[in-house]
Amino acid sequence: MSEHSPLAVVGTVAIDAIETPYGKKDQVFGGSAAYFSYVASFFTRVALVAVVGQDFPLEYRRILEERPIDLSHLHTLEGKTFAWKGKYTGDMNMAQTLATDLNTLLDFNPELHFEKHPEFLFLANIDPNLQLKVLDQVHRENLKYVACDTMNFWIQTRLEDLHKVFKRVDCLILNDGEARMLTEESNLIKAARAIAKMGPKHVLIKKGEHGALFLYGHEIFSLPAYPIDKVSDPTGAGDTFAGGFMGYLALTGDTSFTNMKKAVAMGTIVASFTVQDFGLDAVRKITRADLDERLKHFQQICSF
Amino acid sequence: MSEHSPLAVVGTVAIDAIETPYGKKDQVFGGSAAYFSYVASFFTRVALVAVVGQDFPLEYRRILEERPIDLSHLHTLEGKTFAWKGKYTGDMNMAQTLATDLNTLLDFNPELHFEKHPEFLFLANIDPNLQLKVLDQVHRENLKYVACDTMNFWIQTRLEDLHKVFKRVDCLILNDGEARMLTEESNLIKAARAIAKMGPKHVLIKKGEHGALFLYGHEIFSLPAYPIDKVSDPTGAGDTFAGGFMGYLALTGDTSFTNMKKAVAMGTIVASFTVQDFGLDAVRKITRADLDERLKHFQQICSF
Repeated sequence: MSEHSPLAVVGTVAIDAIETPYGKKDQVFGGSAAYFSYVASFFTRVALVAVVGQDFPLEYRRILEERPIDLSHLHTLEGKTFAWKGKYTGDMNMAQTLATDLNTLLDFNPELHFEKHPEFLFLANIDPNLQLKVLDQVHRENLKYVACDTMNFWIQTRLEDLHKVFKRVDCLILNDGEARMLTEESNLIKAARAIAKMGPKHVLIKKGEHGALFLYGHEIFSLPAYPIDKVSDPTGAGDTFAGGFMGYLALTGDTSFTNMKKAVAMGTIVASFTVQDFGLDAVRKITRADLDERLKHFQQICSF
Repeated sequence: MSEHSPLAVVGTVAIDAIETPYGKKDQVFGGSAAYFSYVASFFTRVALVAVVGQDFPLEYRRILEERPIDLSHLHTLEGKTFAWKGKYTGDMNMAQTLATDLNTLLDFNPELHFEKHPEFLFLANIDPNLQLKVLDQVHRENLKYVACDTMNFWIQTRLEDLHKVFKRVDCLILNDGEARMLTEESNLIKAARAIAKMGPKHVLIKKGEHGALFLYGHEIFSLPAYPIDKVSDPTGAGDTFAGGFMGYLALTGDTSFTNMKKAVAMGTIVASFTVQDFGLDAVRKITRADLDERLKHFQQICSF
């Protein structure tokens, strides 16, 4: 019998190849659920629901095993691990995808077998049909908070399914470009309000180097990014932002506006560490105390 | 003998024609010094140093006369008033200039005759040579604080003169695109630090809907924009931002980091009103109390 995880994430585990103005790296351990779970585990025990291929390196599994992450839902399937190759240029706000090999991701059929279901759930960026499959397996009334992510590809090709997902989650976390695409609204406040009408009562828009905007019913919270003068690799920034946000929420169990503002700020801080090095390299070097210290500095930077 | 003005602005007074997704307006009263002085006058008496042509409408002069603005340096020259025609599309962060008629601006030769010189000076966006001419006429040691603005055109064509200006001001206020162009640095923190090495000890980068970044020696202050769900016309946002910032500084006379953070926030608030209607229409409807009230709300929106 495994220890209870208050938080679960369903998403991808991947092997990435990344090129930025600061370097080029193959064989980088990545994937939305890997990034999310690694940093959420600074706050709470987290269950990782994902698949990998037979080529998945043991050393990557060890990285996750170091942390309070429940790996009993990380299944190894026949074939190769999902692989993504991307490049960042210019202001590094947007990756250019060079190659995507779905591999075992094509056979991903998430099945949740928990003795006690997690109270907090994050549906990372995957096929909206899989997100719906997960939602079918959880009792909504036992869940305190469900958030989901998505991407431009699903907005363009699978909008109908996405709308079904939106109706069943508390919060949609997406970036500014996706919010504009989804709503055809250039003003982000209006875009956030339009999204709230699609279902999620909370909307969290990530703006990369420009910070984040959080719509909580009629309330709005806006904050800049933590200033980082050398962004080495933005990969995983959004997933670790979500991981810090949801991890902090699961730890505190408090979804009041006041506490959620702190959760958004914590997500910002976690993401600010992520981008300082390739893959998980930067966050692997820190502790919860480093997050708290930078959060305190962030509070000084923003207050007037 | 006119009353003392603690603050002076040298810049343009213009007649604009503006097109945005929300409408089209000819004969809009504008110009950097007009916008700046109008809103700075919410905080302190301000001297406006500029030229207009013989066609300058009396009703526009009346708008300035309503406020504690010293117009004794607003000279009427032979010819027509400087006219600008611009258009905003998409996310409205950047104007597309359709026409510029310099007219009397070509004969602008600022001469400062003050019984007692202002302690705070803003060199709005004009030919860097004129900015230097103004600096030659003031005794730097009698000035508490000098800030200047500029634009991409001067960066591209008159960089040498601009560098002379930068060495003689306390603060450069510019937008993100200009900061990147000036430094060839995409990261804004690095760009701000690079600008500080050119002379100004303070650098204030305006990011439109994304807020502002303020470098104060080794300190950094970052804040989002006040959320506005309908930006009718961004013209004058930058000039009124500067007007709120410098007006608040001149009122308080305090250039400590703590007070300057508040001045930046006040600039943000003033700009947030400006964009809600065409030209000066929105700020003409408000009082200092409205600014203070929105500033208080802004503090709630940003705090965590």
